[in-house]
Parts: sequence; C-alpha cells; structure tokens
Amino acid sequence: MRTVFSALTLLVARLPLPALSAAPTPAEAARIREDALKDDLAWDIAEGLTTEVGQRLAATEAEERARVWAVARLKALGFSKVRVEPFTMTRWTRGAERASIVAPFPQSLAVAALGGSSSTPPGGITAEVVAYPSLAAFQAADPAEAKGKIVFVSHAMTVTSDMNGYGTFSAVRREAPKLAAQRGAVAVLIRSVGTDYHRNPHTGAGAAGTGIAAGALALPDAEQLMRAVKRGKPVRMNLVLESRSEADMPSGNVIAEIPGSDPAAGTIVIGGHLDSWDLGTGAVDDAAGLAITTAAAKRIMAMGKPLRTIRLVWFGAEEPGLVGAAAYAKAHAGEKVAFAAESDAGAGRVLSFETSIREEALPAMQPLRQALVELGVTKGHGNGAAEGSDISVLARQGAPIIGLAQDMTRYFDLHHTPDDTLDKIDLGELRQNVAAWTLMLAFLANDRTELGPVAVSDK
Amino acid sequence: MRTVFSALTLLVARLPLPALSAAPTPAEAARIREDALKDDLAWDIAEGLTTEVGQRLAATEAEERARVWAVARLKALGFSKVRVEPFTMTRWTRGAERASIVAPFPQSLAVAALGGSSSTPPGGITAEVVAYPSLAAFQAADPAEAKGKIVFVSHAMTVTSDMNGYGTFSAVRREAPKLAAQRGAVAVLIRSVGTDYHRNPHTGAGAAGTGIAAGALALPDAEQLMRAVKRGKPVRMNLVLESRSEADMPSGNVIAEIPGSDPAAGTIVIGGHLDSWDLGTGAVDDAAGLAITTAAAKRIMAMGKPLRTIRLVWFGAEEPGLVGAAAYAKAHAGEKVAFAAESDAGAGRVLSFETSIREEALPAMQPLRQALVELGVTKGHGNGAAEGSDISVLARQGAPIIGLAQDMTRYFDLHHTPDDTLDKIDLGELRQNVAAWTLMLAFLANDRTELGPVAVSDK
Repeated sequence: MRTVFSALTLLVARLPLPALSAAPTPAEAARIREDALKDDLAWDIAEGLTTEVGQRLAATEAEERARVWAVARLKALGFSKVRVEPFTMTRWTRGAERASIVAPFPQSLAVAALGGSSSTPPGGITAEVVAYPSLAAFQAADPAEAKGKIVFVSHAMTVTSDMNGYGTFSAVRREAPKLAAQRGAVAVLIRSVGTDYHRNPHTGAGAAGTGIAAGALALPDAEQLMRAVKRGKPVRMNLVLESRSEADMPSGNVIAEIPGSDPAAGTIVIGGHLDSWDLGTGAVDDAAGLAITTAAAKRIMAMGKPLRTIRLVWFGAEEPGLVGAAAYAKAHAGEKVAFAAESDAGAGRVLSFETSIREEALPAMQPLRQALVELGVTKGHGNGAAEGSDISVLARQGAPIIGLAQDMTRYFDLHHTPDDTLDKIDLGELRQNVAAWTLMLAFLANDRTELGPVAVSDK
Repeated sequence: MRTVFSALTLLVARLPLPALSAAPTPAEAARIREDALKDDLAWDIAEGLTTEVGQRLAATEAEERARVWAVARLKALGFSKVRVEPFTMTRWTRGAERASIVAPFPQSLAVAALGGSSSTPPGGITAEVVAYPSLAAFQAADPAEAKGKIVFVSHAMTVTSDMNGYGTFSAVRREAPKLAAQRGAVAVLIRSVGTDYHRNPHTGAGAAGTGIAAGALALPDAEQLMRAVKRGKPVRMNLVLESRSEADMPSGNVIAEIPGSDPAAGTIVIGGHLDSWDLGTGAVDDAAGLAITTAAAKRIMAMGKPLRTIRLVWFGAEEPGLVGAAAYAKAHAGEKVAFAAESDAGAGRVLSFETSIREEALPAMQPLRQALVELGVTKGHGNGAAEGSDISVLARQGAPIIGLAQDMTRYFDLHHTPDDTLDKIDLGELRQNVAAWTLMLAFLANDRTELGPVAVSDK
C-alpha cells in the first residue's frame, strides 16, 4: 500500500498534523494515515503488557497486576480520568490436567480444561470413551450411551476469513458439557474449537454451571483419539482436570478518557479486554486490541479536543462471559453512547468497515469509507454487520456500533491457546489497524450525526 | 509431476511390474515410479505405529511395544528373518517439568528437559538468570558469571532446506550444558534448537553425563525471557526438571530381510529408527523413514529375488545417541556392506540424490540419477554429501552411503517436539519418497558395481 501512494506520502509528510475540528480533507486524511502507519505505541503497549504481565486470567492476581500496569501506562500517556471501576465475580482457575488412553493403545493426549470445568476427583476419572463426530451426532444419539462414560465430541471447525464461523463452531463448547452432564457422563472432551494442528488445546468458556469436568483436546490428539476409537476395541481413558472456583473475587474495568467539548454529543466507547485466558500471554486476544485502540486514541488526543468524549475501556473479565461489560453497562446506565467500537479479533489487517447504526446516518459515513479505501479497507457487509464481544452488551441496549473487521483467517490457530504470544503480532498489520482506527475516530469524533439509537433485533 | 507424464503413465500402466534382474529400462523405471506413487503401505505403517503405539522413548515399555508391533507387521508383510537383536542401555525418562519467572514479571514459560538432564531437587531450583545471546557469547564470557546461576543461552537456529544447519545449531544442546556445569551454574536453559514459534519446546540429546539440569524453552518463551532480562532488573526463575536415569534397561534393533541371490555381493542396509522422543508420536522422526524404506523394500520383494540381500533395520535407541546403531555395528562386524541408506529426515519430498562412494563407482549411478529426475530429484551436491545418523556408524567403518536427501525446510518446526504427529505427513510427499527409494533399490540391488570401501575422512 505505502509504495503505491509514495508520491502522496512525500507530499503530506511536509504538512502539519491536522487539528481535529471538522471532517478531515483528503490531504489531512492522508497525513493522519501515513503518520499512523509509523506508529510505535501500539507495539509498545502489546509488548509491554505481554512481557511485564503475561497471562492475566480474570479475577486473578495477574489480572490485578495488569490493572496496575494499565493505570500507570494510561496516566503516563496523558489520558484523563484514568481509573479502575471494580466489580467482583467467581474466579475459575485450572490445576493439573492430563489425558491418557489407558487401553488399548496407552499414550498421553494434549488436553486443557474448558473455563468453568468442574474438577475431577483425586487420581482423575478412568472410564470408557463414547465418541461422536459432531455435536449434532451427539444430540441425535441414544442418551443412554453416555451414562458413566467419557463423552468425546469431535466437532471440527473450518477456516473462515472473519468471525462468521465462530458462533457455529463454538456452540460445541457450551452444548456438549451441558448435554453430557444431563446424560450422566462422567466427563466430556471436545475437539478444540480451532484451526491449527499444534499440540496446544484451545480453552474457552462453556462448562461453568454444568457440574461436569470438561476439556478440549488439541486437533492432533482429537484425531488420534478418533483413530483409536475407529479400531473398534473399547477405548479407556484416564482424565485429570483439576480446577477451582471461588466466589466474590475482585476484577475491574480500566477506563481512560479524552474529554470532548460537548458532553451532550454523547460518549464514544472504544477498547478491548484486559483479561486473557491463562495458557498464552493474551497477545492477539486481546493485548493487540488494547494497543490499537489506545494508540489511535492517543493520536486523536494529539490533534486537539474532540467534539465527543472518547472513553477508552480496557474491559476486565471478558473471557469468562463479558463480566466486565455487564458491570460497565450497569455503572453507566442511562449515559448517551455516541457509538461503541471494539478491537477484539486479533492483530490481522482491517479488511472492511462495518456499521450497525440508524439507516439515516449511513450517508454521513461516506467520507470515512472513502478515506479507509487507501488502507485496503472495503465498504463492508451491509448495515447491521458491525458487532463486538464486550460492546454487545451496549448494542443490546440500542447503542450504535462501528466495526473495523479484521482478517481472521489464522486467528483461530491461536485463539485461547498457549500459542497466543507476542511473536504472532505483525508490526505492519498492527500499524494498519492503528491507521484505520485513527481515521475512524478523526472522522466520527467531530461529526454531529446521530448514529443511534438502533432498533434491537432478536438476532 | 504426474500430469506432465500422463501419456507415459497411460502407456506403462498396461505393462506388468518388471522383474528385478537387470538395470530397469526407462519404461520399466516409469512403471515402478507410477506404481509407487499410488503406494498405501507407507501411510499404513506410519499411521499404525503412531496410533497404536504413539511415542516410543528408547528403552521404555513403549519402545518394547513398538518392537512387538514391528515384528508382527514385518512378518505379515512377508519379510525373511524378522527378529529383534537386543541390547541394553541406560534409560532416561522425564518427570514433572515447569519453568517460571518469579521476579520481576511472574509468569510460566514452556520448557522441556533435554535428554540426559539431571533432576532438579524437590521444589526445583530458584536462582537468578544470566543470559547469553549465543553459544559463542557464553563461551567468551567471564566464567565467574555463571556460578550459582541459571544460565540461559539464546542461540537461534535459522531455516535451511537441508540438514546443513543442524550440526551448527544443535551444538548448543551439547556444549551449553557441559560448559554451564563446568562453571558451577545450578541449571542451564537453551532456546530450543528449532524454527517454529509454537509453545512446544524441542528436546534432544545433549545433557547426559554433565550432571546438570538442562532444558529447552520454546521459541516464544526464549524471546520472552530475553525481553524480561533486557528490562535490566535481575530476573529470578524457578525451574523444575525432574528426570530419572536407570542402567541396563532393554532395547533392541528390529531386523527384516529380503535374501539376495549372491551372498558374496554384500548386504544393502536400509532403514530408519524405531524409537522416538517422548513428546510427540514420532511421526516424521522417524515413523516416516521406517514407512518409506519398508514400503520400498516390499515393492522390490514383489519384483522377485534381488542379487544383493536387502536388510531393513528399524534401529532402536537412535535419539539418545545412536545406541542401536552401535549395537548393530558390533553384532555385524566384518560383514560386507554393499551400501547403507537411511531415511531419517522427515516426510518431505526427496530433492536430491547423494552419494558417499568410491569415485570409480560414480558412472554406474548415471541410469538411476536419470530415472530419479522424473520425480523432481536433482543430481546432488557432489560425492561425499550422502550421510545419515544411524548409518554414520557404518560409514565410519568405510561403508559406502547412498542418500535421498529430503526437503527439510519445515522439518525443524517439528523435530523433537510434541508437534511431531501424523497430521504433519503429507501423503503425496510420502509417496514420492517411496517412489524414489523403490527406484534406487531397483537399480542398485541388482548392480554388481562395488560402491566401497570408502576412505574414511576425519570430518
């Protein structure tokens, strides 16, 4: 991209950074874009948080350290009203975990407990495996088959370029534990909801409240278990999935602001989530999202006071089920949300500009759409396609949503695995995200167009 | 390849499989090649061994099960004189292993003990880290620095297409433990000798006899530790690397033969190794090599009695240091080796035909070289370039060596890691190997050219 526009780059490099006062002209947009494509702050935030804190499972001491880190960093960057909004929740932590085929082919398999999994008793559980190739096959099977068994559901995810497949494929993580518990299984294993072939299982929420020990096998191990089962002899497994749940533990949202000139214009809520699963260092999920949105906000701050207040939220406890988002919505009930936007889909390039706003506001998006084209961002998939995880709580209350949808082709290789580490972030792609977010905020933070409220469908 | 030669394929598909009696004609070679490119036996062997046995660490009960599996399978395939040639050795097994930064940035790192590592005491070792960017930097440093510390050597491997880099880069696995022990370090960690960025450390031999606990960090973790160290504050780690060494444990080589018509013509020794490291299922290292060589030998058997005896050796205990190869050389001392060839470089395509034979025999290789070109196999890197791991013991005694060198570009992503599993083998590439090996044996098993002895250099 950058070489194609090098002539323009040379031109705009001599211009001062535009003041944030009206819709940027094409030359101003180019200046904002080219400047953001040299951003170092996003990398520094992702590198710092993943190195100096590492994993930060919700409501643990590590997430607490992450909040301390975040407050110090956001204050140092010059944001206003930097604070923690605390809440309490049930903390789930994992202990020892092992899976092994005992007979007929003794060997270990790579396993990780799903979030909220019950703990197996001392020594684990040893039982025969009953295997199903998909969630539908498990649902359709004779319920009596599962009684006293370790249920294994080998529901396979396929690669897609966006978030579309996740809902379809991750259903197994919630439904299989629930159904296995109902049918009297002693434990349940799923094929990881993921697309890589490394010995790194994908954890994720789904087992809380089911009362059953639930784990995910890495893809090579899921296929190994299926091969063993297909030999036709009874397969017995030993499964150790130790875990602990503790009520009323502290977590919190970290919040920072750029005050706007007109409080009545509503608040722009942007951010990602500070907590991570415990297996990796939460680099693409979601240090990257914090880094991108914070770097973009900092760039806006440098351009002067925006019309609308920009509130940066580093949500706590997203992974166990949007606990921080619910606490935020409760604490800020009744406030006017100009729009909400979230970066929680990795560190891949922004591919499309999406909206879930009032139809009447769509024409006002046109200059921004045009400016984003030069970053390789397409016009998107129709109004209503913008979505998010933490901000879904606000969306359900009618808040308009803006989305910068990323390339997710390889995201589910890393998602919720030990492999979610800093090395998976590409600096060039991260900078393209910062540029897209900065442009988006530059256009929309000073525009008075009302983007909401949005009629809430039942989808 | 196959589409390019489809006309020829149609032609030769109607011919009977050639009898093995003289150098194959081009049409016969094409028939052998096309037939082998449909091979299913190699996949069945790799799939069976990795599924029904899995990992098979040297001198363990699992390696014993692998020998039983191997004998049954080789007998069923119709090989002659199928037997185990037993030997005893020191068995090394791993126990619990954990690495964590205690301060200033508490977090876990992915670690695996190196083969032969000493065991840490109960509770592990907690000490300050002294880090070096390379083996040379460690060697050049003040010896006093290491005293009482955990030495970390972040010696980085780069990707090459062949075996060339392995010697250079794996030196750290042997030299770092030795030097760390000499300098009074309490433990030693290396950056894994590997090229992937997954949280799967690469184990491997190197620590035996050093008396120090030695482990490898996965690449993301090695870089994480370096980032922590570069912050400038003392980094303290806790390291648990439990292991056990037991003398006089049973292992063995599994041997099968195709008797030749002329015992005086010498024996062709081919094969790979049956043992594996314990982290993966030993699919590319080295079920693939056993599968390829055995499938090729089986094809030769179907063509009739060769001039030279073909001896298939599934070596035991290669990984801890060619223990099976040494036992083989001792048990078969004085026998005439027509040539030795080994498949122990993964399941990637054969890229080149290599030799380490008497110069006078090189012209006799020409028809074979020509036949291999149609499989995409190049002429190689000059006489002397053929080498092997187990067969290096025979090579040092003057045995001629034939090599079918494979594409190893991605081999060190998997080598000695948990990721070495069946899914990493590509059926098409495996079949190309079988075709190359079958052609090689078809040409050379009936050729009376003396390929050796070869002058033994000191290299």
